[in-house]
Amino acid sequence: MNDTAQSRTALPVFDDVLAAAARIAPHAHVTPVLRAHSIDALAGCELHFKAEHLQRAGAFKFRGACNAIWSLDDADAARGVVTHSSGNHGAALALAARTRGVACHVVVPEGAVAAKLAAIEAYGATLHRCAPTIAAREERCAQLQAQTGAELVHPYTDPRVIAGQGTAALELLNGAAHFDALVVPVGGGGLAAGTALSVAARSPGTALYLAEPSGAAETAASMQRGERVTEFTPDTICDGLRGTLGAPNFAMLQGHGAQVLAVDDADTVAAMRLFWQRAKQVIEPSSAVALAAVLTHRDTFAGKRVGIVLSGGNVDPDTLPALFARG
Amino acid sequence: MNDTAQSRTALPVFDDVLAAAARIAPHAHVTPVLRAHSIDALAGCELHFKAEHLQRAGAFKFRGACNAIWSLDDADAARGVVTHSSGNHGAALALAARTRGVACHVVVPEGAVAAKLAAIEAYGATLHRCAPTIAAREERCAQLQAQTGAELVHPYTDPRVIAGQGTAALELLNGAAHFDALVVPVGGGGLAAGTALSVAARSPGTALYLAEPSGAAETAASMQRGERVTEFTPDTICDGLRGTLGAPNFAMLQGHGAQVLAVDDADTVAAMRLFWQRAKQVIEPSSAVALAAVLTHRDTFAGKRVGIVLSGGNVDPDTLPALFARG
Repeated sequence: MNDTAQSRTALPVFDDVLAAAARIAPHAHVTPVLRAHSIDALAGCELHFKAEHLQRAGAFKFRGACNAIWSLDDADAARGVVTHSSGNHGAALALAARTRGVACHVVVPEGAVAAKLAAIEAYGATLHRCAPTIAAREERCAQLQAQTGAELVHPYTDPRVIAGQGTAALELLNGAAHFDALVVPVGGGGLAAGTALSVAARSPGTALYLAEPSGAAETAASMQRGERVTEFTPDTICDGLRGTLGAPNFAMLQGHGAQVLAVDDADTVAAMRLFWQRAKQVIEPSSAVALAAVLTHRDTFAGKRVGIVLSGGNVDPDTLPALFARG
Repeated sequence: MNDTAQSRTALPVFDDVLAAAARIAPHAHVTPVLRAHSIDALAGCELHFKAEHLQRAGAFKFRGACNAIWSLDDADAARGVVTHSSGNHGAALALAARTRGVACHVVVPEGAVAAKLAAIEAYGATLHRCAPTIAAREERCAQLQAQTGAELVHPYTDPRVIAGQGTAALELLNGAAHFDALVVPVGGGGLAAGTALSVAARSPGTALYLAEPSGAAETAASMQRGERVTEFTPDTICDGLRGTLGAPNFAMLQGHGAQVLAVDDADTVAAMRLFWQRAKQVIEPSSAVALAAVLTHRDTFAGKRVGIVLSGGNVDPDTLPALFARG
């Protein structure tokens, strides 16, 4: 195991978030913080929305991907990167790689949504199709690493990715008065773990809540059992939150004492509709879950100042009729 | 005819726009100007979007309504206002009236969308239902005026409304370098006529284009014939643009020499989808028509710096499946 690989197995710390912030500054947007007074009135608290749906490539994922790309030394950069993701991480890594002229390989399962694959290709990445199984995906990634020397950038366990995701909360905490609580969605746990680093260092009095779909609630189960639950079948419209909580992510979140709030899909769709109507912003279900958590746990947040990371806005318009029919 | 009524029959001038800007400043938002580089690339020109979908009550209509409300003398204000509109003007007038504690009566046709009526009532206006004919509507308005002394605020022919709508373009022209062209939607012509005032006074070298649905293209017909066409049956999804171009609006637009661009509904839906996907902003079809005009008349705008007024974002989520099914 060489130094780079070793460093990739260590848990990131807050200094890594600060370094990431400096590293991605020339490339990532400092996204605005939005307010919506009529939603405050409904929620019974003061909400500040960190608008990562306005981030490049439409999601916070660009932060972590960009940090990973610009952390590579020149020799590694020349060999390129590889990942497996047909969603926001794939697009984010492709765009981040383009900012440095790095070759990017994205392994995608047969049957992935054509529009999403087109976006990844439009950012200049090379697609590699594989059978829709974890085994096939890992085998194809390993093959590509062996053939090209490309480095794997995992969507949420990579410490460079976690540190990069922490910069969203860092900006939020730097920019305003004290927050009583911060709410972020949790899936694999990259955003959640990165946010935990920023909260602990910059605003330890701020309670961190993780919003999780009831149909993929293995983070809550893991926290309760005190060990990571990996056997579950996700059933949720939140396509960005179906992944299994990563091992480093679990360790970091457990250490932080973050609390998990479960949210039913119907409440997520209602929150998404509400935000579309009142704030005129397109957010995806995997983002709306955090607002839904606040709206459905009123007592927890009553009268408080609450930050919400709106993680992304990549909704396929073709899915809207079905989405809203469920609302 | 008293002085107030007389002044309401005169065409507004640019000084009225300046006065409106000062009058509404404590109440209306100075909306941001948005950019979307990937849409620039598609359009082949540089687009600056004046984000009136982020205006209070979700549309530019609040500007004109607010100007009308705060133009009333105290005696008139005590008697209240009345209008007929189940759409954005009704909601805007209701909210504007609330900013001054003025009674607001809104005449709405039987069968109007329940969600829109609920919004008007939520802003504190009193709804008055009537049969869905122009005769019934005008009769009910006249009745209410007689009973209460309330003053009529017409959605687009009222000169206070026209002057107020002109403040959106005024902000856009004040805030940036020279625009080669400005594109706004046209229905009744309140926004179009107000914009013409601001363009003529502040940036006479800027070409003004009016985007009109092909299924309600009476503005184009009126401009061609040199007289106002009032006999037509609108057939368009752009519910804010089905009204007949007003007489003062026609006179002002003819005098200005604004050009009309017709847009098919299918192109409007495609533009709306594009803006939702790339800019993550919810805009209604009656707004998207202006972007669609630019995308479908590429040669007209190639290489130019173009301002677009995004007029509103009030889409009923229940209509989304049908809207996108047409796209």
